[in-house]
Amino acid sequence: MKNYFSSNFKLGVLGGGQLGKMLLTETQKFDIYTCILDATYEAPCAQICNEFHLGDLMDFDTVYNFGKKVNLLTIEIEHVNIEALQKLEEEGLEIYPQPSVLKTIQHKGKQKDFFVKNNIPTSPHKRFTSLDQLKKETLAFPFVWKSAQFGYDGTGVKIVKNQNDLNSLTNTDCIVEDLIPFKNELAVIVARNKNGETKTYPVVEMEFHPEANQVEYVICPARISENVAQKARNIALKVANSFEHIGLLAVEMFQTKDDEIIVNEVAPRTHNSGHYSIEASYTSQFEQHLRSILNLPLGNTDSKVAGIMVNLVGEEGFSGNVVYQNIEEILKMDGVTPHIYGKKQTRPFRKMGHVTIVNNDLSEARKIAENVKNTIRVISK
Amino acid sequence: MKNYFSSNFKLGVLGGGQLGKMLLTETQKFDIYTCILDATYEAPCAQICNEFHLGDLMDFDTVYNFGKKVNLLTIEIEHVNIEALQKLEEEGLEIYPQPSVLKTIQHKGKQKDFFVKNNIPTSPHKRFTSLDQLKKETLAFPFVWKSAQFGYDGTGVKIVKNQNDLNSLTNTDCIVEDLIPFKNELAVIVARNKNGETKTYPVVEMEFHPEANQVEYVICPARISENVAQKARNIALKVANSFEHIGLLAVEMFQTKDDEIIVNEVAPRTHNSGHYSIEASYTSQFEQHLRSILNLPLGNTDSKVAGIMVNLVGEEGFSGNVVYQNIEEILKMDGVTPHIYGKKQTRPFRKMGHVTIVNNDLSEARKIAENVKNTIRVISK
Repeated sequence: MKNYFSSNFKLGVLGGGQLGKMLLTETQKFDIYTCILDATYEAPCAQICNEFHLGDLMDFDTVYNFGKKVNLLTIEIEHVNIEALQKLEEEGLEIYPQPSVLKTIQHKGKQKDFFVKNNIPTSPHKRFTSLDQLKKETLAFPFVWKSAQFGYDGTGVKIVKNQNDLNSLTNTDCIVEDLIPFKNELAVIVARNKNGETKTYPVVEMEFHPEANQVEYVICPARISENVAQKARNIALKVANSFEHIGLLAVEMFQTKDDEIIVNEVAPRTHNSGHYSIEASYTSQFEQHLRSILNLPLGNTDSKVAGIMVNLVGEEGFSGNVVYQNIEEILKMDGVTPHIYGKKQTRPFRKMGHVTIVNNDLSEARKIAENVKNTIRVISK
Repeated sequence: MKNYFSSNFKLGVLGGGQLGKMLLTETQKFDIYTCILDATYEAPCAQICNEFHLGDLMDFDTVYNFGKKVNLLTIEIEHVNIEALQKLEEEGLEIYPQPSVLKTIQHKGKQKDFFVKNNIPTSPHKRFTSLDQLKKETLAFPFVWKSAQFGYDGTGVKIVKNQNDLNSLTNTDCIVEDLIPFKNELAVIVARNKNGETKTYPVVEMEFHPEANQVEYVICPARISENVAQKARNIALKVANSFEHIGLLAVEMFQTKDDEIIVNEVAPRTHNSGHYSIEASYTSQFEQHLRSILNLPLGNTDSKVAGIMVNLVGEEGFSGNVVYQNIEEILKMDGVTPHIYGKKQTRPFRKMGHVTIVNNDLSEARKIAENVKNTIRVISK
């Protein structure tokens, strides 16, 4: 094994956002020297990593030159220059997840084709190179439209119900999927290292607001049967093994009305759906990502206690210097931990932090989570 | 409440060692801007705080000038210039723990006098201004000798069994205590905020090596009766309330042969005996210290699971660039988390890190802890 701990080994990370910041907690714990590349000095990681490099993650030279300074490279965001990664890999740099995997996942069309080719259950889809091409096709409403690249947090995804919706879409490379009615939206995080060792985390469930159709709570464990949970974990594992993925892979899935599991999409990194693991799991997803990419033994993915995660997003109507109103009220509640990402400016719907609620009793945690959600407000002063 | 989160509030910390580093994990989580003062750029905190200041913690001007740059000041080591803190406090700076408390605790003679004055059970003691003065007294062997100031990790403490031992002592301000035979060495961490809200952590037990008389394991919960545990927590709470302490206070105690609890000494800060809390508790001691000094509501001190802590100290016969031999072996074990403090050079007995073992079953954790202890070695290359 290489000596990563208090050594001259340098880990490079593309991206310095909140996922990078929570990874730094783990590199600090293990004293692994970490270099971050991000486009802004305002990035949450900028002041707390060993070395911060300023630059555009989509620029070939910037990514290539950064890669030459480190001993192993990983990502906290998948929108990076893959050509630079491929050249670095050819020149011998270890990069996890592998550039070839990132390339497939970066493009939702290629990602879907990969699922089909590897017999991974997913909703039927068609690929189009532009909206114009799509419009020539006769498609039955409703359907799901996804921009092939650069969508995040629900941007680049639309349910198209009629001709009007169709006309509002961006003219870009895209895919169209059947709209599958589902009971539950689930996710499973898989860790896989170079030795091929794998571990799956328990299934989490996204609970939606009954009217707004927005995820309100990420709940672990999902309130589903053991049978369905096992099926979901097996399918997630199959996805990771099919990619021969190294690192963390978050697999988003639907549980259909007849209890089938179909894969929606994957993210090749630590994921919002795994934030609960910091407080609830024996091994947090961030530590597990490190273990995976460094080919260390994987940690126990079981939970110590039930966990629920609530995102802290900027409230509508507020822009400017952020204030976390009533944060002291939620700190009074049992088992409540706010994570503040360090973005100084709030904007409507901007992800500013999250709150984890842990408890021995999931239904008690669920009550406290609702109380948290109704109490804290992300506003500006 | 003041706005601490993603704001221009600046928290100052005197000392940049491992306790400061683990505190930074929490200030990062809450995005509280943190300035550290330490005498060396090699300090574990140096690269990962918002602002690092180089300087001597015992120097009046250095501490005073640092204090003028921050909005609230705390410590991670108690050997600091108290006069500078007193001047800063007079000028309106909030400093927690309070300089007056630090002054009493810094001096073991004053600390013992404080216990006696406040009816806190402790072993009988006498104070001497020098070894020469002590030698004029007729004392029955054996007794415990403690240097009044600047002892740490067992330095400055000796069991004096005969005239030879007496002659080997340093000629300094000191105290002499009766040697009390004890069943168990216990510790309780108390948190207290400005509102006077208090919480005690569960009692931990130090398990000693049967021959070497060194602490091998810190075990939470202590394997003692509920009755004794409650007595220990009550006495610890009484100590914190007597000081009107603000911040964390670690109270080290002995359980005597007849199940009395007597206080050995206190530390006005986060403590080695609370490291288990990072993985085992609902609220880690480091988050709790922040909550206390910022007058935020205190968090739940209960444990999610049982926890055992093993210190990683430099092995005898090794000095130089540190290597954590077999660290990958301990990472295979269930519920095992190494914390590497980031000191690049090992020396015999230097505290280089610690390992926490958590498990639902304390006796299972104890077995794994022994396996950890027998596996990992802190050596040099």
